[in-house]
Amino acid sequence: MIKGVLLDLSGTVYLDDELLPGAVVAIERLHARHIPLRYLTNTSRRSRRTMVKKLRSMGLSIAEEDVFTAPRAVRDYLLEHQFTPWLLVHPEVEEEFADLVGEEPDAVVLGDAANAFSYANLNAAFRLLLDGARLLAVGDNRYFRERDGMSLDAGPFVAALEYATGCQAIILGKPSPAFFHAATSELGCRPQEILMIGDDVLSDVNGALKAGMKATLVRTGKYRLGDEQQICAPGACVCADLLEAVEGLV
Amino acid sequence: MIKGVLLDLSGTVYLDDELLPGAVVAIERLHARHIPLRYLTNTSRRSRRTMVKKLRSMGLSIAEEDVFTAPRAVRDYLLEHQFTPWLLVHPEVEEEFADLVGEEPDAVVLGDAANAFSYANLNAAFRLLLDGARLLAVGDNRYFRERDGMSLDAGPFVAALEYATGCQAIILGKPSPAFFHAATSELGCRPQEILMIGDDVLSDVNGALKAGMKATLVRTGKYRLGDEQQICAPGACVCADLLEAVEGLV
Repeated sequence: MIKGVLLDLSGTVYLDDELLPGAVVAIERLHARHIPLRYLTNTSRRSRRTMVKKLRSMGLSIAEEDVFTAPRAVRDYLLEHQFTPWLLVHPEVEEEFADLVGEEPDAVVLGDAANAFSYANLNAAFRLLLDGARLLAVGDNRYFRERDGMSLDAGPFVAALEYATGCQAIILGKPSPAFFHAATSELGCRPQEILMIGDDVLSDVNGALKAGMKATLVRTGKYRLGDEQQICAPGACVCADLLEAVEGLV
Repeated sequence: MIKGVLLDLSGTVYLDDELLPGAVVAIERLHARHIPLRYLTNTSRRSRRTMVKKLRSMGLSIAEEDVFTAPRAVRDYLLEHQFTPWLLVHPEVEEEFADLVGEEPDAVVLGDAANAFSYANLNAAFRLLLDGARLLAVGDNRYFRERDGMSLDAGPFVAALEYATGCQAIILGKPSPAFFHAATSELGCRPQEILMIGDDVLSDVNGALKAGMKATLVRTGKYRLGDEQQICAPGACVCADLLEAVEGLV
């Protein structure tokens, strides 16, 4: 019995600048049945504020506090452990960390920096890591779908810096169980009563399964034929899109 | 009994724009004792032609045909397998492949591209690999020493693209046994009669050991305290520099 739902955003609810077909209907149906939901995203090319603003402009009714973003999880971790960050993030996400940066950084924060993934920036991050800084990353996602094709996400750059230094990154967004559980605790449900719906088999589906939840892989966004073969445990199903995933519930 | 020597270049014979102390004396001593030698380098920020020109300007007596470069090994592989390359290499190395590029690339050639490792270029490489192109790399070196500190080499970018795509790169420079053996065959010796001298414990030392050779790690260039603990097999020793490594021989 599913009592709460976690939704991925990019590739599941929207793609580029448009909501995916059926997304609004699916979400309205969850609201109508009083099934609480939260959004859980590793997207890090926008701050939470501008992301919610953009989703509203597309026609989605969404509250900022319902959105759990990986950059926010990184921010919480920095505060909890009193790290001073050095940012390798998209310029639009810098505002999330503006009050935390300082002269003597001891943590490299890696998001989906897009064009800010220059050789000079990667090398600067590498040298900080060699000097003992920790590597904190929004996620280990491999890629995501954009209008003109698949694009590299943060994960490959995490892999590059881990390989170069021999260090291991701390992943704070999906598939970190702590990230899933932070959202779950707000829903007032136990993990096994939660369904996570997303288009990334590793980050969304396997992450949720490892956090003790149910999961549905949607064949939208970055989905590629055969992705379902990478599902790591029982308890997951595969649907055409978000609407089909929700129809099974309500 | 050592009958032939293979020398790494960057960090072993020279650093930035200068020969390392004792390098000329060490090499002259090998010549005086008629111990044949070849140079084996994964450096891919220059063509072989300009690299040899630069080494001569520093004062090293060196013949172009004595230098085995990883880009040349990639070129040989492309020709042998009739691949059309798409280049993710340093602009100065493009001349090595100028006659091979074409409209429908089916191999991504990855060198130490330095500032050409932009997000746009990495993404273009990624999309070609998703479409089935092979990934050919000069090496899997993690980093090398520059005047102002350590800098990322090609290896981390190989790791990034392997992680993103799930494919495995074909490494054509060190530590590929084929690369060591190509140089060895010119020396007219058996692998166990060859000594490889270099500053990279994984690429130079472990690569040579796995190719059946002896190896010496020099504590110059990228060497960091503790690197010797990564030596993978017996048959290697550690020396302060190239001169000390050669003094043990002659």
